[in-house]
Amino acid sequence: MSAADEMTHGADKPWGEVSPEAARKLLVAAVEAFAERGYHATTTRDIAGRAGMSPAALYIHYKTKEELLHRISRIGHDRALEILEAAAEGPGSAAERLDGAVRRFVRWHAERHTTARVVQYELDALSDEHRTEIVELRRRTDAAVRRILNDGVKAGEFDVPDVPGTTLAVLSLCIDVARWFNAQGRRTPDEVGELYAGLVLRMVAAQK
Amino acid sequence: MSAADEMTHGADKPWGEVSPEAARKLLVAAVEAFAERGYHATTTRDIAGRAGMSPAALYIHYKTKEELLHRISRIGHDRALEILEAAAEGPGSAAERLDGAVRRFVRWHAERHTTARVVQYELDALSDEHRTEIVELRRRTDAAVRRILNDGVKAGEFDVPDVPGTTLAVLSLCIDVARWFNAQGRRTPDEVGELYAGLVLRMVAAQK
Repeated sequence: MSAADEMTHGADKPWGEVSPEAARKLLVAAVEAFAERGYHATTTRDIAGRAGMSPAALYIHYKTKEELLHRISRIGHDRALEILEAAAEGPGSAAERLDGAVRRFVRWHAERHTTARVVQYELDALSDEHRTEIVELRRRTDAAVRRILNDGVKAGEFDVPDVPGTTLAVLSLCIDVARWFNAQGRRTPDEVGELYAGLVLRMVAAQK
Repeated sequence: MSAADEMTHGADKPWGEVSPEAARKLLVAAVEAFAERGYHATTTRDIAGRAGMSPAALYIHYKTKEELLHRISRIGHDRALEILEAAAEGPGSAAERLDGAVRRFVRWHAERHTTARVVQYELDALSDEHRTEIVELRRRTDAAVRRILNDGVKAGEFDVPDVPGTTLAVLSLCIDVARWFNAQGRRTPDEVGELYAGLVLRMVAAQK
């Protein structure tokens, strides 16, 4: 699945927040180019060409290549945080909230795997200021999952000897779906979400 | 930790199988360059320069940049397979073998995280012939873990409704250590290995 497919077929319209249309097209082209060749091997000329535009037209919307990467990373991290905070603050027992968080987080990483790979693997290419901003979003993402685990421990629903370590493992398991997921593979994003929710509930020894 | 540190301080001397010394130095330089800038943004001239050699000296040992990536990928995958097959065929109960496999596999991905990232993220840059060879090694790696899980299920030690899916998740969890592991971070490679072995034994509902 290409970044363009991810844009067109996504249930929640990724990049829908980017306007005008030319800016959105350039972002999709940038995701594809970064995923294929890496950030450093991609030029703004490559990105403009992929979007069927001139380099001058690109500069109207993005001053630098790093600005494109930052937009991609920011939107990706905002979405991840939104999914996990909604789960953390939602109704239901800790087990139900953890189940929902894992299912939705996995589905996002499977459906948007091209975007997620760029977001995860090119963090070092961000400017210091932008990296600091993204690290703060990641801290909040981590806190949302930790909150569900702590709630479950307090309620006697979970048995988790190492909450920070288990939080790290749960997030890592979900994020790595972006690396191996193959749209032509055997499992749909929903099926992976279901499998992983079950495994994570075992990791926290959730009461049945 | 840089690729050079990984070479010098590794318990089992990574790249020790590469000789002569000039070929080994070039491999270390290639891992560092690929990890920093990506495969496509790196030239053989960059790699030679990092190793303090001329491009002509590089060509004595490696005909192409792809040959360097293939050597790195092959050695990395051979080592991963060696770790997991030794665990699968070793003595002990299925739980003991799974515990050992996860500890050693995690430790390798933590200690050699720079190498492991290159090996995992640059698969698409291999030639068709080399990619086919590496995919076969990955199939055998997967089979080694699946064998331990199947042994545990047969012996009544584990309860695993979906063995292929759980195998995938166990390997993914361990591999992703290479992405997030930080040598300056809070946890040592051994501590991550211990945490993850415990979580994986819960994933398979191992009898205590």
